[in-house]
Formats: sequence, C-alpha cells, structure tokens
Amino acid sequence: MKRMKATVAYDGTHFEGYQSQPTGRTVQREIDRALRKLHKDDAIHSVASGRTDAGVHALGQVIHFDTPLSIPTDRWIVALNVLLPKDIRIVAVEEVDESFHARYSATGKTYRYKWSYEPVHSPFERNYSVWLGHLRPNLERMQEAAQHFIGTHDFTSYCSSKTGTDNRVRTITQLTIDRKGDELVMDVTGDGFLYNMVRTIAGMLIAVGRGWNEPEDISKIMLQKDRTKAGKTAPAHGLYLVRVDYENNDN
Amino acid sequence: MKRMKATVAYDGTHFEGYQSQPTGRTVQREIDRALRKLHKDDAIHSVASGRTDAGVHALGQVIHFDTPLSIPTDRWIVALNVLLPKDIRIVAVEEVDESFHARYSATGKTYRYKWSYEPVHSPFERNYSVWLGHLRPNLERMQEAAQHFIGTHDFTSYCSSKTGTDNRVRTITQLTIDRKGDELVMDVTGDGFLYNMVRTIAGMLIAVGRGWNEPEDISKIMLQKDRTKAGKTAPAHGLYLVRVDYENNDN
Repeated sequence: MKRMKATVAYDGTHFEGYQSQPTGRTVQREIDRALRKLHKDDAIHSVASGRTDAGVHALGQVIHFDTPLSIPTDRWIVALNVLLPKDIRIVAVEEVDESFHARYSATGKTYRYKWSYEPVHSPFERNYSVWLGHLRPNLERMQEAAQHFIGTHDFTSYCSSKTGTDNRVRTITQLTIDRKGDELVMDVTGDGFLYNMVRTIAGMLIAVGRGWNEPEDISKIMLQKDRTKAGKTAPAHGLYLVRVDYENNDN
Repeated sequence: MKRMKATVAYDGTHFEGYQSQPTGRTVQREIDRALRKLHKDDAIHSVASGRTDAGVHALGQVIHFDTPLSIPTDRWIVALNVLLPKDIRIVAVEEVDESFHARYSATGKTYRYKWSYEPVHSPFERNYSVWLGHLRPNLERMQEAAQHFIGTHDFTSYCSSKTGTDNRVRTITQLTIDRKGDELVMDVTGDGFLYNMVRTIAGMLIAVGRGWNEPEDISKIMLQKDRTKAGKTAPAHGLYLVRVDYENNDN
C-alpha cells in the first residue's frame, strides 16, 4: 500500500460541510465515492486535515488515503477529477511516507475571510464573500483590534460554545486584514483553530470596525472565557481554508 | 407614469434563461415578481434588450418598465435588490424619456466569452468560464481568424439554425481575443446578434485555434450560408452580456 497526500479545492456552496453524515451531500462522501470507483468498488477512506462547515470553501484542504494502485502522481489528479463533481477539484497529489497523517501531522493552518465593499454585491460573488453593505467598517480600528488576537491565548470566548475540546489554548502567528480592490481580506495563520474560531474572530473584527466594540475589548473578552461576550459569528460563505502546513511541506 | 431604465447583472447558472416561459425559473419572472411586490400587486412588466439562454450571464443587461411611483433613482436600486434573489442585482436605475425602449432603442451590444487556461479548472470558476483542458489553442491563429468576422456579413453560418429572423446581416465593429492571466477572453461588439451567434463564433475560433480549421475558413464558411459548415457552438456558461448601447447613453 502507498500513502497518498492530496490537496483539494472546493466550492462549499452546495455541500452540507466536509464530513460525511447520515444524509446530505458532503465533500468527504464525494471524494470517497470517487476513490471507490477508481479502486473498482474497494472502499478507500480518505482522512482530511479537519472538517469545514456548510458553505465554507477550500483552496487547499489536505487529505490522505492508502492505495494499492501504482499511478503516476499527475495521472492521479486527472483520474480523480474525472470522477469528482466540478465543485471539488484535486489540485495536487504526492506519495508520502506512511507516517504522514493529514490531521495529526498538521502543524498549522491558514484561513481567509472575505468581505465585499461593492456598492451592489456582484451576483457572481454572492456565495464567495460577505457584503459590507452601506455600513462600512473602519479598517484602522480592525487592524488595531487584530493585533490583540496574535499570540497564544485561551480562545474560549472566540469559538463556538459547542466546541468539543477542553484545551482551548491556541497560537495565532499571523493575522492581517487589508483592503484589496473591492474586497476586505483577513488572512489568519495559527497552529490550529477551534470550532467556528475564525468566523468568531471575523465577526468580532467587524463589530470593532463598526464601532460596536473597542479594539481593547478583544483582550478583555478573551480573559472572560465566555463566548456570549464576543460578537456575532460571521457567515460561513466568506470563509476559505487556504493552506495546511506540515513539518516538512515536501513530504 | 414614468419610464425607468435599469441595468441588471445576473449569474445565469440557476436560470432557465432570461425570458419567462410557462415553467421554470427565469430572470424576467424574478424581476417582474419584484416589480409587482413593489407596486402592491399591480402587474408591472419589464422589457429587456433581448433574451439570454440558460446558463448565460449578464454584467449589463438593460430593461425598461413604466411606473406610477416616485422613488429617487438610488432608492430604486435598494428597493428592487431587497426583493430580488441574490443571483440578480440591479446595478443602475435612471428615468428615461417615454420614447426609450430597451430592445428597439438599442444600437449595439457587447458580449464577452471566457475560457480558462488553468491546469485544473477552479471549482469557483466552473460556471463562469469554459476550461481549455490540455488542448491549448493557438492564440495567434484565433486572432487572425477573428479579423474575418469584423464588418458587415450575412451570419447565417454563424447562428443557430433555429434563428427566427430572415435578415441575418449584422455588423461586428470590434472583436478582440486575448489572454488575461489564466483566462482567454473574447470581447465582441456589434449592432446586434442573432440567436447563438456569439457562441458559434467562439466555437469556431476555438476550432481554428486547435487546428481543426484554418483562419481563412471563416470567410469561406460565411459565404456558404450554412450553419452545418461551422464548428460546435461553445457552451453557454462562458458567455456574458456585458453592455447594451443606446443612441445617447445618457438618456
């Protein structure tokens, strides 16, 4: 058996999230169905770096799976893409050491959140960014607030109250928020993210940008360890999983 | 009554075309439904510059409608967009002279056709450009071929055989095809276009680019006035109605 690592992009609009569940269209189900077809009905199960919610997109989700097949890596891309629906694309495949695990070997992730400054939200962007409308946030305030998220903190106030993890200490190594043309783009990199953590951070930054909170509130709320103190969770369709990092990104 | 001119953008993916038909979701039906709601159930019918097929997009479709309401033009945009689904957006509204007619006053149109050079077609572009795959067309040949379409010609060979018009003479004033980043973009402006004319031209240019036809075949096939001589009609989802021109674009 060979262990293969694949990088996957998907448009999350028409999925009920990444992970297979009893009913509903999920990214994992489609990938495992394609793998099964390619393996002549042998059930091959893929493992992802983590799940994403309904509506959340990916530019660089990472999965692994084990296979008895010997296919050159560039042919893997074509063979899987022929079998996958067009809202999921395999963008890279490589053989990795059997010790590689898409989830447990991950050392960090980068997410992006996109808002639109357009006077009228383009119909082509409706599922891919969140419209700011006529209530434009103050970018400098958001940039100031963003600094308070960087570092190692207990993010209990900034993740879903449904988070199923006791240890809510995470490290954010980078968080930038900038205007790029008609878009407001937040990029955040960390060693790991709790359930809804990026969307809660995005929602909190907007709250500061609109004057509902002060930049210093970020740290105060962090210390309270209470999700109800932070603002609204930003909508799913503005969020993208951009990249998953591994110890040695060549492996 | 006031006559209003509105510019409309839509993502054609989930529409069975522009024009209302007995069943199915159409852009016209959604617009007329929004107008009706705004007019407290008075049926207001919009007239468009022309129809577009299922899957075809618009950046600048133009419609007109008559209304007894006195609403400032920027409020018209907001009022209609609140009532419309998000894959249709009103981007501009202005009051025009009652002699203005979205279809009959039009003096020209510009369409765009987009292909993708991406090694793997982005899932976010799947409905918005046509993937060229691994069979890359020769751009210089396409640009040479494009010249043969410019001018006044009988376009019988380059429109659907279902075209319901006897006069198939049209004038193309501009036709450019260029690579822009990962996209191949054709922009074509003319005094009017027959049914499927832009998609037939696009399909023919690809046939030349891939070596299935020679650039000089464009004129030869034009003279034969026979649709079966030209290549395949390019898919609907690469096509955009960009702009409709009127005698005085200020009116």
